[in-house]
Amino acid sequence: MSKIKKESGAIDQISKFGSDMVNEIYGNKSPYFTAPVRSRSNIIYDDKEGLLTLGKSEEERNFMNIAQTKKFMQTIAIASKCHTFLKENLHTSIRGLFYQLKYSLGEDIDENLFNEQSESNPLIEDLEAALGLKREDLNLSADRKGFLAGNMRVIDTFGDERLEIDASKQGRSGWSIPSDVDNNMEFIDVKAKYVLVVEKDAVWQRLNEDKFWQKENAILITPKGQASRGTRRLIRKLSDLGLPIYVFNDCDAWGWYIYWTIKTGSMNLAYISNEIATPKARFLGVTMSDIENYDFLKKLTMKTTDIDIKRAQEMLSYPWISKHKEWVIELKKVIQTKTKLEQDSLQGPKLTFIGEYIREKIKNQTFLP
Amino acid sequence: MSKIKKESGAIDQISKFGSDMVNEIYGNKSPYFTAPVRSRSNIIYDDKEGLLTLGKSEEERNFMNIAQTKKFMQTIAIASKCHTFLKENLHTSIRGLFYQLKYSLGEDIDENLFNEQSESNPLIEDLEAALGLKREDLNLSADRKGFLAGNMRVIDTFGDERLEIDASKQGRSGWSIPSDVDNNMEFIDVKAKYVLVVEKDAVWQRLNEDKFWQKENAILITPKGQASRGTRRLIRKLSDLGLPIYVFNDCDAWGWYIYWTIKTGSMNLAYISNEIATPKARFLGVTMSDIENYDFLKKLTMKTTDIDIKRAQEMLSYPWISKHKEWVIELKKVIQTKTKLEQDSLQGPKLTFIGEYIREKIKNQTFLP
Repeated sequence: MSKIKKESGAIDQISKFGSDMVNEIYGNKSPYFTAPVRSRSNIIYDDKEGLLTLGKSEEERNFMNIAQTKKFMQTIAIASKCHTFLKENLHTSIRGLFYQLKYSLGEDIDENLFNEQSESNPLIEDLEAALGLKREDLNLSADRKGFLAGNMRVIDTFGDERLEIDASKQGRSGWSIPSDVDNNMEFIDVKAKYVLVVEKDAVWQRLNEDKFWQKENAILITPKGQASRGTRRLIRKLSDLGLPIYVFNDCDAWGWYIYWTIKTGSMNLAYISNEIATPKARFLGVTMSDIENYDFLKKLTMKTTDIDIKRAQEMLSYPWISKHKEWVIELKKVIQTKTKLEQDSLQGPKLTFIGEYIREKIKNQTFLP
Repeated sequence: MSKIKKESGAIDQISKFGSDMVNEIYGNKSPYFTAPVRSRSNIIYDDKEGLLTLGKSEEERNFMNIAQTKKFMQTIAIASKCHTFLKENLHTSIRGLFYQLKYSLGEDIDENLFNEQSESNPLIEDLEAALGLKREDLNLSADRKGFLAGNMRVIDTFGDERLEIDASKQGRSGWSIPSDVDNNMEFIDVKAKYVLVVEKDAVWQRLNEDKFWQKENAILITPKGQASRGTRRLIRKLSDLGLPIYVFNDCDAWGWYIYWTIKTGSMNLAYISNEIATPKARFLGVTMSDIENYDFLKKLTMKTTDIDIKRAQEMLSYPWISKHKEWVIELKKVIQTKTKLEQDSLQGPKLTFIGEYIREKIKNQTFLP
């Protein structure tokens, strides 16, 4: 899956996807397309690139294969709708796409191919993988989540307007990271020294109020929990600009897995890891070792639940995590001590302590890989 | 509960709350305070104001009453922390407050009064109700959710900066509605004709891309599902400026209840309804009657679940809803036909149809009360 291309060209690619099939029909062949297999068996960890990606297995979707005919037709219907959206220069959600498909498949077709959105969702992924494009490039918006503040400007070409948004002038709100940060969008004057990704919005707000990003010349991002596609893509783009990426999350298997998803990509979205994973990201905290190093944290820990422990054990079973001895130590400490810690707890002694903690970590470069 | 005051004065009120108790102690009396009862038994629908509010029952929290001593002390500890936050001019979340309380109660007190956040949360509500202030006025941030675009400007006095944010120049992202829209924040040049509140962010994005708010001179808000405190407060403030408020949600008991929460306030937050409820709000759609009036919608409906039906029945039992015959008809149609409809479905025939639907509703003023 190294064929993901970004920006432009989507309409040409989707047109060629269609005309290739028309040619097959005119050549008396059954139309078909191939897509990489996205199931667990074909997900590999690419040690050189440092990310989860798809292996070499491909599968063919062939119109004349009765077992595949319906899915083939459904995928073509989705491609046709996306082609229209691209021509019209309009976006919608995958829910909006579903209702378009349910309403009508096209000019002359009086067939009801879609009953549930669960039918169209995996086929959108097929199409993304087959075309080597992200859904955002096909004018399909994913859920947005996440905020940013810092010394940079966003050029948002929004319809006929060219808007310049200064991410250092958004006050308490910050700039909301959209679904698509590639098409009709540029990031200029990125003057920061590093990017700090903070798991929770409440902690982001605390640091934003302290003007942490201004004082430290950082870009401050919160994914608000698990990172959306748009936020992951943006973090990757900032990494590609040469900025160090430091991630600051809760000290438990969930917070840590949010970090790993940012860093290596996730299994679900392995087919676009090379666009949205940030292998250079490093983990700033919170760690189990912090509990030993910052004495006051001992009284602010929480007991783990059974699910926390199960999740930590699962993470130990992932070779891309367990190859790092530092992470094995951390995960084993969670399992042994049955203890976890939230990033919010660093406000215990004083509200501004979170910033002091981060500064110290960055000064001493005490990161986990 | 008509004593809610906004902006300024919070520090004076909380200081007086403390000094009153000191005086009681010096007068050899047991310190106490009173707060309105917030339980279901004391929640009434105020027909004149058109909102859910608290009745006249009050309860006393008395230090010398052993059953109340711990809660009394906990509430005072919370008040003391908020007093410090106000003096420092710093904000935190209720989770941040909890960790401050767990870390230390104050200078000389070596007592562990708080083990779980579930202990501090209801006492924050007690304090809000006792003081007649919102937690946002006490520098406690609630979760933020919701976006806005339109012809207006936000003056966000953020620390030492006075930032002017033009809500018509925020592109695809919009302006993110913060937790506190009262303190150090002004809304100026509000030139719109009306406010359109759209339940789902995906539909807001669709309309934002069409520049619906620009063409119609509207302010376009999405609460992203159930409205946050900040978004409810902002809708109310815009209503107080004289703008009509139209709400556009899914056609089911959930979407409708989101409307009712915006309009009359909710039972949980009845103690601040007179700040965050918008009795003048009207419901634009989607309604069960729309399914009869827009023929294509018939094929885009969905089957209700048992929980949908149960929720609709509950809504029929609320007198402030069932006093409107239009709503009784709508709710009964859901129960009888076991059918519901999403607002997203209006994109079926073409992506821009949502805007046409809204324009027609507003032109004909076909709203539900």
